[in-house]
Amino acid sequence: MGTRVEEMIKGSMQSLLDRDSDLARRMIQADKRIDQLELQIDGSCLQLLARRQPVASDLRFITISMKLVTDLERIGDLGVNISERVLELNQEPPLKPYIDLPKMAEEVQSMVHAALGAFVESNAEAAEAVIKRDDAVDAYYGQIFRELLTYMMEDARNIYRATRLQSIAKYLERIGDHATNLAEMVIFNVQGKDIRHGGKIPVDEER
Amino acid sequence: MGTRVEEMIKGSMQSLLDRDSDLARRMIQADKRIDQLELQIDGSCLQLLARRQPVASDLRFITISMKLVTDLERIGDLGVNISERVLELNQEPPLKPYIDLPKMAEEVQSMVHAALGAFVESNAEAAEAVIKRDDAVDAYYGQIFRELLTYMMEDARNIYRATRLQSIAKYLERIGDHATNLAEMVIFNVQGKDIRHGGKIPVDEER
Repeated sequence: MGTRVEEMIKGSMQSLLDRDSDLARRMIQADKRIDQLELQIDGSCLQLLARRQPVASDLRFITISMKLVTDLERIGDLGVNISERVLELNQEPPLKPYIDLPKMAEEVQSMVHAALGAFVESNAEAAEAVIKRDDAVDAYYGQIFRELLTYMMEDARNIYRATRLQSIAKYLERIGDHATNLAEMVIFNVQGKDIRHGGKIPVDEER
Repeated sequence: MGTRVEEMIKGSMQSLLDRDSDLARRMIQADKRIDQLELQIDGSCLQLLARRQPVASDLRFITISMKLVTDLERIGDLGVNISERVLELNQEPPLKPYIDLPKMAEEVQSMVHAALGAFVESNAEAAEAVIKRDDAVDAYYGQIFRELLTYMMEDARNIYRATRLQSIAKYLERIGDHATNLAEMVIFNVQGKDIRHGGKIPVDEER
């Protein structure tokens, strides 16, 4: 599921750069398989919980998996949203060469990859490194948003296309947020403590 | 947690209508309690899973609760986002009287309320009614987005404020999506089948 989600980010951004509407449509289709995988994994987790009645770290692993797939599925949805904006943009002449947007996309894709790697390896340090990278993504978003705003102010004919591109930047920023969620859950899985929201509430699920 | 989330939507929109920066700041603070409640409920669910080893409908209820709180927490975050845009808008003169935006906000707040009511009452029909209402929310979003686009094209001085208001409309549209997620999980809880993504994959967690 993780691999398919990463391909979704890559493919939808490629469809933007190449103005490739066929690829954008294929990406929108590809999301259906990601949706199915979420249901399958949720079903498997429920079966494990019911049949094996796991405790401690196994219980944590399974319940976290059920939360991870929610984030992965939504990253897939954001890939669909990018592809939808690409189909709209391909009806219009190109606004400008894209420089920061592909860099931002590479960064969030790499964050998702690193978060999933940290999950597989139960590596809390690697997960912490992912969380730190989200500030750079937010900075990219602010920069791209403001640059597109100047295009809009210069010429009203740029407005429609610039809002489409601002939406794509926003989707990428949200993928960065989901990668951060994934990384936080990896740390919880490894360390058995919840660092979300500053981690004030101790979670004790051991018997 | 649900009540606080509903108050979050209401308060953040009230701060927009009244241009009340103090209220917007209080809403941003109020989200911290929602974040804590997510952690507490997750912790309680993990304890129940570990200590009671529930099966069938109890197991489903608990794992679904853990997914529900994720959606509720994100609605809280979107309330924060609305309040942040309000603080920005209050630095500028008002753009126009808001008509559709408060109506849209009432609709999504009522959807969240109805979805949580359906959860408490295990009422699948009420949950299905919530899902059907999301089309109207999407239509509101499209209409508000396009109206603001015309303001932007008319006068470049409107662009900054119009993009803030478009963001608020987008946040409300996403709250509608989260209400739909909540309702889908209620149906799964009641009927033991997964209707997400068209519900093609049967989920069998009974022994």
